[in-house]
Amino acid sequence: MRAVQISAPGAPLELIERDLPDVPPGHVLIKVAANGICHSDAMPGAGMASSYPRTPGHEVAGTVETLGEGVTRWAPGQRVGVGWFGGACFECDPCRDGDFISCQNGKITGLTTDGGYADYLVAPADALAAIPDELSFAEAAPLLCAGVTTFNAIRSSGVRPGDRVAVVGLGGLGHLGVQFAAKLGFETIAIARGTEKEAFARQLGADHYIDSTASDVAAELKALGGADLVIATATDAPSVSATVKGLAARGRLVVLGVPHEHLAVHAGDLVMGSSTVAGHASGTAKDSEDTLRFAARTGVRPMIETYPLEKAADGYERMASGRARFRVVLTTD
Amino acid sequence: MRAVQISAPGAPLELIERDLPDVPPGHVLIKVAANGICHSDAMPGAGMASSYPRTPGHEVAGTVETLGEGVTRWAPGQRVGVGWFGGACFECDPCRDGDFISCQNGKITGLTTDGGYADYLVAPADALAAIPDELSFAEAAPLLCAGVTTFNAIRSSGVRPGDRVAVVGLGGLGHLGVQFAAKLGFETIAIARGTEKEAFARQLGADHYIDSTASDVAAELKALGGADLVIATATDAPSVSATVKGLAARGRLVVLGVPHEHLAVHAGDLVMGSSTVAGHASGTAKDSEDTLRFAARTGVRPMIETYPLEKAADGYERMASGRARFRVVLTTD
Amino acid sequence: MRAVQISAPGAPLELIERDLPDVPPGHVLIKVAANGICHSDAMPGAGMASSYPRTPGHEVAGTVETLGEGVTRWAPGQRVGVGWFGGACFECDPCRDGDFISCQNGKITGLTTDGGYADYLVAPADALAAIPDELSFAEAAPLLCAGVTTFNAIRSSGVRPGDRVAVVGLGGLGHLGVQFAAKLGFETIAIARGTEKEAFARQLGADHYIDSTASDVAAELKALGGADLVIATATDAPSVSATVKGLAARGRLVVLGVPHEHLAVHAGDLVMGSSTVAGHASGTAKDSEDTLRFAARTGVRPMIETYPLEKAADGYERMASGRARFRVVLTTD
Amino acid sequence: MRAVQISAPGAPLELIERDLPDVPPGHVLIKVAANGICHSDAMPGAGMASSYPRTPGHEVAGTVETLGEGVTRWAPGQRVGVGWFGGACFECDPCRDGDFISCQNGKITGLTTDGGYADYLVAPADALAAIPDELSFAEAAPLLCAGVTTFNAIRSSGVRPGDRVAVVGLGGLGHLGVQFAAKLGFETIAIARGTEKEAFARQLGADHYIDSTASDVAAELKALGGADLVIATATDAPSVSATVKGLAARGRLVVLGVPHEHLAVHAGDLVMGSSTVAGHASGTAKDSEDTLRFAARTGVRPMIETYPLEKAADGYERMASGRARFRVVLTTD
Repeated sequence: MRAVQISAPGAPLELIERDLPDVPPGHVLIKVAANGICHSDAMPGAGMASSYPRTPGHEVAGTVETLGEGVTRWAPGQRVGVGWFGGACFECDPCRDGDFISCQNGKITGLTTDGGYADYLVAPADALAAIPDELSFAEAAPLLCAGVTTFNAIRSSGVRPGDRVAVVGLGGLGHLGVQFAAKLGFETIAIARGTEKEAFARQLGADHYIDSTASDVAAELKALGGADLVIATATDAPSVSATVKGLAARGRLVVLGVPHEHLAVHAGDLVMGSSTVAGHASGTAKDSEDTLRFAARTGVRPMIETYPLEKAADGYERMASGRARFRVVLTTD
Repeated sequence: MRAVQISAPGAPLELIERDLPDVPPGHVLIKVAANGICHSDAMPGAGMASSYPRTPGHEVAGTVETLGEGVTRWAPGQRVGVGWFGGACFECDPCRDGDFISCQNGKITGLTTDGGYADYLVAPADALAAIPDELSFAEAAPLLCAGVTTFNAIRSSGVRPGDRVAVVGLGGLGHLGVQFAAKLGFETIAIARGTEKEAFARQLGADHYIDSTASDVAAELKALGGADLVIATATDAPSVSATVKGLAARGRLVVLGVPHEHLAVHAGDLVMGSSTVAGHASGTAKDSEDTLRFAARTGVRPMIETYPLEKAADGYERMASGRARFRVVLTTD
Repeated sequence: MRAVQISAPGAPLELIERDLPDVPPGHVLIKVAANGICHSDAMPGAGMASSYPRTPGHEVAGTVETLGEGVTRWAPGQRVGVGWFGGACFECDPCRDGDFISCQNGKITGLTTDGGYADYLVAPADALAAIPDELSFAEAAPLLCAGVTTFNAIRSSGVRPGDRVAVVGLGGLGHLGVQFAAKLGFETIAIARGTEKEAFARQLGADHYIDSTASDVAAELKALGGADLVIATATDAPSVSATVKGLAARGRLVVLGVPHEHLAVHAGDLVMGSSTVAGHASGTAKDSEDTLRFAARTGVRPMIETYPLEKAADGYERMASGRARFRVVLTTD
Repeated sequence: MRAVQISAPGAPLELIERDLPDVPPGHVLIKVAANGICHSDAMPGAGMASSYPRTPGHEVAGTVETLGEGVTRWAPGQRVGVGWFGGACFECDPCRDGDFISCQNGKITGLTTDGGYADYLVAPADALAAIPDELSFAEAAPLLCAGVTTFNAIRSSGVRPGDRVAVVGLGGLGHLGVQFAAKLGFETIAIARGTEKEAFARQLGADHYIDSTASDVAAELKALGGADLVIATATDAPSVSATVKGLAARGRLVVLGVPHEHLAVHAGDLVMGSSTVAGHASGTAKDSEDTLRFAARTGVRPMIETYPLEKAADGYERMASGRARFRVVLTTD
């Protein structure tokens, strides 16, 4: 099988041949059809993988090939996906509370185990999500991280149906976040840099558009009545922090990306509005499955550019350059 | 001015002429343009009004005519509506907790004060909801009770965005409930009697339709995965109670109508599924305003038949017969 | 080893000798020290066990003896308990959502597997709860069902700290529910039959006592301001249903026991108060552990009468007669 | 009547004589018996009052003297208190949603109207809270701001009964926060500077004590299992921000004080733990009443030092110096 690996921190992506991996009990071998490229695929290169060499990739869509001992939920030939969530330990306290995404021994696809830049992937059975027939593999792949993260952030935020939701950033995550917010019936505000994205944002379902280079974003949000929820996909700390002043009373800023700098928030802004800044971490396999089902039913689709597996480095470069419209997916034939 | 009144319990609707009412401090005189007819308009006839004669009607849409002393929020000429909620006392404990709909001195339009079957209505300023320009008066009227009750029941139920919502009944409330559920992105199930309503239900946005005369409703719901929320607009107690067995784990049945008979629920069904039966009571003026704004933005509209005010009795009869498609509105020129 | 078994539906409890059970992978062998007797221990006798013969008992406290293959969380010698929750399947949709108590393949101790009326018990590792040193085995046992059910019902109900909580019934569950409510700072109301239990209820921490034989319970609750939460441990349907009228606005009745008859609730009572009737099903192993830790920290203790294992039938009879004060525990030396 | 006023930004507290104020419709004249001193009483001196001269003081306890026109809820002679919340407008959108504390025209006692450093105070009827007989005026006063802020922050935070709650700071707010957390049954952690406060913290009900000068607070919290809720009463931004790393999964830091500097929080800490930083703003009159009732019932009491009204400047100085144990109350005879 072919796989793309990073041999050590700092090393480049390289395409290699290697043997098919063993399938331990409770695991599944998946023939990869498509794998979305995410910013955090750079983490192994930055030394954050658990061991090396490491194959990145945590937006994996494909077909069940072989079942490890004891797996009964899945069957060969089934269309499945694996995301950032690489399986739970079921033994730590968060897992015993059913909060798998907070698992203290968290397995992360492409970081603590080999990921989807490859012809085959091995994953624990509990890390799999079924892919509905309405979605192609290439469409499904970005929904397994960019998609579930935004959909799940919205649905878990406590926002009430019909409220006002703003999405900061209109890239891989943001262009899905806007679609999800719109299809969920929220009054949807897209916030991005420049005027040229406005038409596209409205096409995705946005009711309003704010050009963050020209406006005081918080003031614009307030003029619309204040955002009940802001989903921040951008990784520029000041522009994320700035939205706090644009929240409605009891509004909530949910941070998905992780800027290098700290978020700087004035306590007075939080106290006066009884408002909140929260973090949200992707979702479990079941959350992914719910995301895929919602997308299949309502027509939410990622916009993608595809690259063959052997051009993984070019694909990553394309995504990192910010010019991709809007998610790059590696395909495997 | 013309008004329709019930002179005593048991007396029929009669059209009379009477003087314009005084406008006390904190109140507003509204020129009525349209008034939706609701089943509970029969309550004065059944002896449930606070005094007689009484004019029914609590789905009132019109224009602000005169302001009582001290009213600053509203201005003459503004398009406004008044629903079941006839204003809060601001002094009882629920009001002090901000829970106006639970006001212990609850004023109810058309029941404790004269309602909208008339050319003019007087209402407390806090009972008014602004009507967006996108909605005609006749369209807005049913949203002020049938609409807010269903929209608000859904959004207050704790259901998560994207969940599975069933609506029992496809009359005045139900045909709005299905639209709201669909526009809010829920997987929407309409439940009604007979097959002839299926096409219409799907047109309103339903993903699924269950004919309750032919199916075991609970089993059908379970086959779809179980309902996370059932909104019951029907007033037949057994068919409402029967849906409990069709709830998903931690599902919730929310009852909007009030059957004569008791709901009979087996505790085992509640315990095994950790499920819930709850009541929901309409909404405040602000809830109505949110409903109207949501409808204006997303295209939810009541289907109505109109009758002139002087034909109020015919209009009521039409609604009560169950043949109206789907809400009867009295209009006033 | 000794065990008490029911050989077939309708058969009596009989003490037998049998071999130590095997310990499958992922399971733990526990040397039983104490086992609380619960009403639902009658279910195997009533034909509700999954197979026969069956040993009842789901309030099991003891010591880890042997670990099955692959168990890492537990160690021999550890003090542990097992309750109604007999382990999750981790594969059904509720399990994948982390909602183990709603597991569709729910294993139930003493019903789908042999329970704690025995010298030894085998249980899946995920069904175990650690017992703090502050609690004796006999004290811990009833907390593993009667305790977790009441504690978990209260904490999961959505009631706000400091609210008004009523507990209906003052038997095995109720006398724990009152203690939990009081130690959690709720304004606590005990409701039971007769005046003779009042002093005891106040000793357990109740702020108020209502004798249900002499009073209109709902009216008394309303006179106290209305109950924000009623926990019903009684199994007399009418007296459970009657409390709905005593709820505060947005109050909630949580049903723990399962009366034979249906609960009969008037929808109008639910709608007017925006109130709720919900079921609650025990708790997971982690919920039990939380309950045990809370009890250890705050001094909540069951009041028990102990019987040796060989007198299981007498112990069961004592509990069923309603004369036990307040929970019967079988002990094993 | 005597009153303490600040004649202009920067001016000192001065004791003056002035006429009894008029009592407008909907208002109440209160004879002040006690007034707690809060840090934010410095805000008029800092130029933050709406007009000058201004009398500070928003922890006012006393007796109803005269009723303005239209007030029916209160009666002369009744024991009442007024806190930071100076009444709602009932017309803005948050008020119409019942969220009075977010009122956009928020009246603040001692800031937009004259406060309690005086013999008499005029307040809107909706700003009054009844004081239970169990509490003296001097005990009640600090509960009307320091008390309601901490109690209400805890009960509104979404924390589950029995969870782990940490209180940062052990001054006027903190010493009440620890008592409330303990009486509500939470596993309570007090965090303060130095070892000398440990014994006192435990006396107030703390289960654990962390000396923030000697320990890595976040690491200590984690060693205890992680805090489900941190209530930050301290106004040193770094020590508040630092607690984020000590939160349990899905934990929440609630900020009550307003440090000058921004809170600096790393998004990664929020995302990994799905945790939250929120602000909390005091409470309404009803929240104060709930706080007073809870304190009366459970024995929570502020520790106070009293000064006569004419020594207001000394009293303020004492509080500001941080040496007061733990709240300074002005009394009026």
